[in-house]
Amino acid sequence: MNVAVDAMGGDKAPHEIVKGAILAAQQFSDSGILLVGDEKAIRQELDSYRIIPKNITIHHTTQVVSMHDPATYSIRQKPNSSITRSVELVANGKADAVVSAGHTGAAVAAATLYLRTLKGVRRPGIAAPFPTRHGTCLIIDVGANIACKPTHLFQYGVMAAICSKYLFDVENPRVGLLNIGEEDAKGNDLAKETFSLLSNSHVNFVGNVEGREIFDGKADVVVCEGFVGNVILKFGEGLAMSLLSAIKEEAMKSFWAKLGLLLCKPAFGPLKAKMDFAEYGGVPLLGINGVCIICHGRSDSRAIQNAIRVALQLSKNKVGEHIVSELEKTNAPTANVT
Amino acid sequence: MNVAVDAMGGDKAPHEIVKGAILAAQQFSDSGILLVGDEKAIRQELDSYRIIPKNITIHHTTQVVSMHDPATYSIRQKPNSSITRSVELVANGKADAVVSAGHTGAAVAAATLYLRTLKGVRRPGIAAPFPTRHGTCLIIDVGANIACKPTHLFQYGVMAAICSKYLFDVENPRVGLLNIGEEDAKGNDLAKETFSLLSNSHVNFVGNVEGREIFDGKADVVVCEGFVGNVILKFGEGLAMSLLSAIKEEAMKSFWAKLGLLLCKPAFGPLKAKMDFAEYGGVPLLGINGVCIICHGRSDSRAIQNAIRVALQLSKNKVGEHIVSELEKTNAPTANVT
Repeated sequence: MNVAVDAMGGDKAPHEIVKGAILAAQQFSDSGILLVGDEKAIRQELDSYRIIPKNITIHHTTQVVSMHDPATYSIRQKPNSSITRSVELVANGKADAVVSAGHTGAAVAAATLYLRTLKGVRRPGIAAPFPTRHGTCLIIDVGANIACKPTHLFQYGVMAAICSKYLFDVENPRVGLLNIGEEDAKGNDLAKETFSLLSNSHVNFVGNVEGREIFDGKADVVVCEGFVGNVILKFGEGLAMSLLSAIKEEAMKSFWAKLGLLLCKPAFGPLKAKMDFAEYGGVPLLGINGVCIICHGRSDSRAIQNAIRVALQLSKNKVGEHIVSELEKTNAPTANVT
Repeated sequence: MNVAVDAMGGDKAPHEIVKGAILAAQQFSDSGILLVGDEKAIRQELDSYRIIPKNITIHHTTQVVSMHDPATYSIRQKPNSSITRSVELVANGKADAVVSAGHTGAAVAAATLYLRTLKGVRRPGIAAPFPTRHGTCLIIDVGANIACKPTHLFQYGVMAAICSKYLFDVENPRVGLLNIGEEDAKGNDLAKETFSLLSNSHVNFVGNVEGREIFDGKADVVVCEGFVGNVILKFGEGLAMSLLSAIKEEAMKSFWAKLGLLLCKPAFGPLKAKMDFAEYGGVPLLGINGVCIICHGRSDSRAIQNAIRVALQLSKNKVGEHIVSELEKTNAPTANVT
């Protein structure tokens, strides 16, 4: 298995990306890591290591997509960008998966354009893992598709369930629909129609899931429209950070509380790890013909290393093939509905 | 000023509702509190108090809306319900405001039907306060309207800004639009069109606000579609609860961390208060001809007391009148757009 890594994408590129790639190359010595980007910059990074794993190769490109480039512009105007070239390596069969911490919109656009969607898939969607009290819940879509139709959401349920099975070892993943009430008839038209599609399918559908129920672990997969998913992803990040810093701030006001916080510190460790995006590495864009892992812009080497692990896990388990055969099995009207 | 209180609404009704009404009657002795519900049940509660404030009166009704009743059913089939009767007291001029911890959908439906919307207002919206690092942010709408159009969102911005001014003493409230990116052209059609309406108005519009920026206090008011608002309201509640209980759980695993948590406890106090819905009392349904405060189903006496305070604050400040005159001033096309 080969993983193409966008060496120029992310706030900490290329330093942390190259470092993460080296760590992954050591960990997965039977896989190839293809570093895609400016050769000079990558070599400069590699020069600081005593031993460069043999399974690392460089693929030179001349352009970089900036965070300010609109996604479609980046595709048309920067054909030699590190993200586009990384995706092309997968399209040409030289790599099985791509990992990028760069411009999410550009990565989604390049992957959709060059890799195309899997047979039967209407729209690709990004599945992000959320820690719950009992494990991990995959929320799909968190921003690839902000014009969702019921069929898209239905397919997201099917795709993320397969992903949950192979990434988190969940045997028969429970799929829920993010909604504003538990009752069947709740929600807007999109939610109601998706409810009906999921109910009348072979998906292990557990019904509507309210925002607060995600954390109770009511479902292993929760489907929602990309706008809503993106908002809650960032909202959750902001709330958790704000809450932890408020605790710290309050505790600093008294000597005893400050001491208490110091004693508590080890307890925050596992919690922070659970909430840390670097642990998960990156989020898969599901539904395209190849594996594409999108990383947080602030990714460090550990995040990149873990993202490469996730990429290999999905590639080795042939998640794409499972998605196609699962969608073929489904009795939902995917063929005639747009 | 008179406040009609739905004595039968909420998980802890009538006990905590009556208790909260008594506390408010003592605190606001120049206002009248009208307890609406089953007279026998209310009297039984009142009998346990040595002194019943003179400004408390009972308005007998025979029906109660259950949490399982659909909103429209409750209006048609239960004309004598405590929530409908409470709203009618405002419609008939016998009360200035209504407070209910009962079925939110029924309260919104009854208020919209019997009080009607204010002149120029397209749709009422619920404005919920969120604690930020620097104060309070009103998010509107959190579930009254799940078929939002750009004009509705624009008007929510105008209405919640007035509410923010009179509830939280913010001089010139900054209004933001909840979106999935900071750039002007981001988001779905609804977001883009609302952005344009807000940009071309006299509203103190600060642009797009991402989920995580709410907590940084980037805006005093954030407008969003009711489905999204309701999801993040409940998502935030679930995440905060799950985070705090995870901290406790982790700390319980070691003696020193447990001791540390005990020492930290005073630091959690102000934080919990900040996050506690009971502190805010309830959330106003803005845009109707009268004041309507919707409380959490789990409201206790303190929440009800605070909700009555909020009801009086909005009534005394004639927030409805300010909304009408502010909407008249606006140059947004409210007249010809549905």
